[in-house]
Amino acid sequence: MQIRTPYLVFLGDVPDALAAKTGQGIVDWRREAVAGQLRLPGCQADLGVPELTVEQAAAGGAKTLVIGAVNPGGVLPKAWQRTIVEALDAGLDVASGLHTRLSQLPEVVRAAKRRGRRLFDVRHTDRQFHTGSGAKRPGKRLLTVGTDCSVGKKYAALAIEREMRRRGIDAEYRATGQTGILIAGSGIAIDGVVSDFAAGAAETLSPDNHPDHWDIVEGQGSLFHPSFAGVTLALLHGTQPDAFVVCHEPTRKTMRNVANPMPKIEDVIAATVALGRLTNQAIRCVGVAINTAALDSSAARRCVERARVQLDLPVCDPMRDGVGEFVDGLRLETD
Amino acid sequence: MQIRTPYLVFLGDVPDALAAKTGQGIVDWRREAVAGQLRLPGCQADLGVPELTVEQAAAGGAKTLVIGAVNPGGVLPKAWQRTIVEALDAGLDVASGLHTRLSQLPEVVRAAKRRGRRLFDVRHTDRQFHTGSGAKRPGKRLLTVGTDCSVGKKYAALAIEREMRRRGIDAEYRATGQTGILIAGSGIAIDGVVSDFAAGAAETLSPDNHPDHWDIVEGQGSLFHPSFAGVTLALLHGTQPDAFVVCHEPTRKTMRNVANPMPKIEDVIAATVALGRLTNQAIRCVGVAINTAALDSSAARRCVERARVQLDLPVCDPMRDGVGEFVDGLRLETD
Repeated sequence: MQIRTPYLVFLGDVPDALAAKTGQGIVDWRREAVAGQLRLPGCQADLGVPELTVEQAAAGGAKTLVIGAVNPGGVLPKAWQRTIVEALDAGLDVASGLHTRLSQLPEVVRAAKRRGRRLFDVRHTDRQFHTGSGAKRPGKRLLTVGTDCSVGKKYAALAIEREMRRRGIDAEYRATGQTGILIAGSGIAIDGVVSDFAAGAAETLSPDNHPDHWDIVEGQGSLFHPSFAGVTLALLHGTQPDAFVVCHEPTRKTMRNVANPMPKIEDVIAATVALGRLTNQAIRCVGVAINTAALDSSAARRCVERARVQLDLPVCDPMRDGVGEFVDGLRLETD
Repeated sequence: MQIRTPYLVFLGDVPDALAAKTGQGIVDWRREAVAGQLRLPGCQADLGVPELTVEQAAAGGAKTLVIGAVNPGGVLPKAWQRTIVEALDAGLDVASGLHTRLSQLPEVVRAAKRRGRRLFDVRHTDRQFHTGSGAKRPGKRLLTVGTDCSVGKKYAALAIEREMRRRGIDAEYRATGQTGILIAGSGIAIDGVVSDFAAGAAETLSPDNHPDHWDIVEGQGSLFHPSFAGVTLALLHGTQPDAFVVCHEPTRKTMRNVANPMPKIEDVIAATVALGRLTNQAIRCVGVAINTAALDSSAARRCVERARVQLDLPVCDPMRDGVGEFVDGLRLETD
């Protein structure tokens, strides 16, 4: 299921830029897929792309209205629903990563049926998957893993795909969360899959490929997070990565939304290798991505250098330094 | 949600005893909850309990028709559906562990509505769970874990509950699979929970309790099974067991339905301790249950003794030897 581009990114009337993070991610990583933005009166976010009405977007060839902002309180405001229906009536599909399902809003469903348009609730999946087989698939895979949730796994994976493509390597980002799916136009929200089939869904996400193709799979959760480690392990086993990059946020004291302390990077590397060997004996760590957004540039530099010495691995902040060093490591192996 | 007893166990027209394994499990472990069995013409299974019609069962106080056999090919035969509707009309609830959902059979749903009866599809869950918190809960917990799927984890857990109760210990079996749920009358089919919430569901399954209460939690899958390790890990983290028993089938060469070799018992113990410490630092292995059903009695004895020497832990076949040794180990700690 591919979400068709160009997108009209809908930001509703959100009160700040943070609420439009998804839309910003799409513009950052897939500017060429964005026809423009649609904002309701009072919207305080701005993606810096052309302002379009639904009619203008449709006339200009836009194919999908993508909800690029988070609705307050998990409820889809009436005014947002009106815009969604308007977009469907104008012939656009609609894609959403919100908890609220488009497919459970009667007015929206009726409009989609009326015009034969598709609704994408990318956070949820109604697809049937097989259980994982554990069998080795041809092609190469890199997985970003984390010391915690929300440490930059999506960003690192997208940056690695971009750098590999820049060097002419056949690489493809594989999205496992809602924002990543909207950016890539496809993918599987792995934490929305029934647990029996989570590893199988990960196998489906990065299927057989030719030997020098790399899938760059967006990680989820952390093997050390008590809420989500099962999801992380299913994704690790199903992805069977040849290579992984550990993502880390150095200023965090406890893991996201729980009281557990942050694990050491070394322990995440060791656990990922130990558990990942079940489906790929050759698994190895090719680097550590440190998200230093909360540090000034000299503290960031010191933090990265300290980790580099301590771990004896390529370490960088993808945002400040790029991810060239990680890709260098992969190239050495492929050559 | 408690499934009400007494049960009328329905075996349909299955061709052999193996197809009635669920019904046999209920009779083996909860004979007092079974009013009788209902068999259609041609049924080759027999649980050795009174033969009752729906009318006789209802008149005698039976509360729930439990489907105790597996339907051929995953489709619920018309004749079975007729019996289910008849039971609902007679005022019984109906409980099923089949893939086919009772709640998706229009005639069955209509009959349940008509009489205000409940349908239990115990393999599936529509309950909403929270994500796991990882916080330590009062009370004690034992989890049965496996070197593989289908090695006797349910049997071992039930045997441990029975032995603990016999000794006057406050113990409660917590079911995580469909047969276990029908035996216990409640539980959560953990592999049917959306993966984001699997650890949280395990937390819900064995809630806060008084300090000397033991929950005996039925394990699922194996940390070394590439299809289901994520489920196993979520259950381990959510259960936060103080003690675990490893279950093993010594004649198996490869893991169930995949090509992976069987892991060593030592490796399962080490991995369970290493990963289980995330939510309970005190986790320890209190024994190994070996399912020797495929061996003759002298080979079984040798197999158990060899493992005992090798592992330096209590080892027994719960079926042949009972599980007293495991419970001895728990008592020492509690005293």
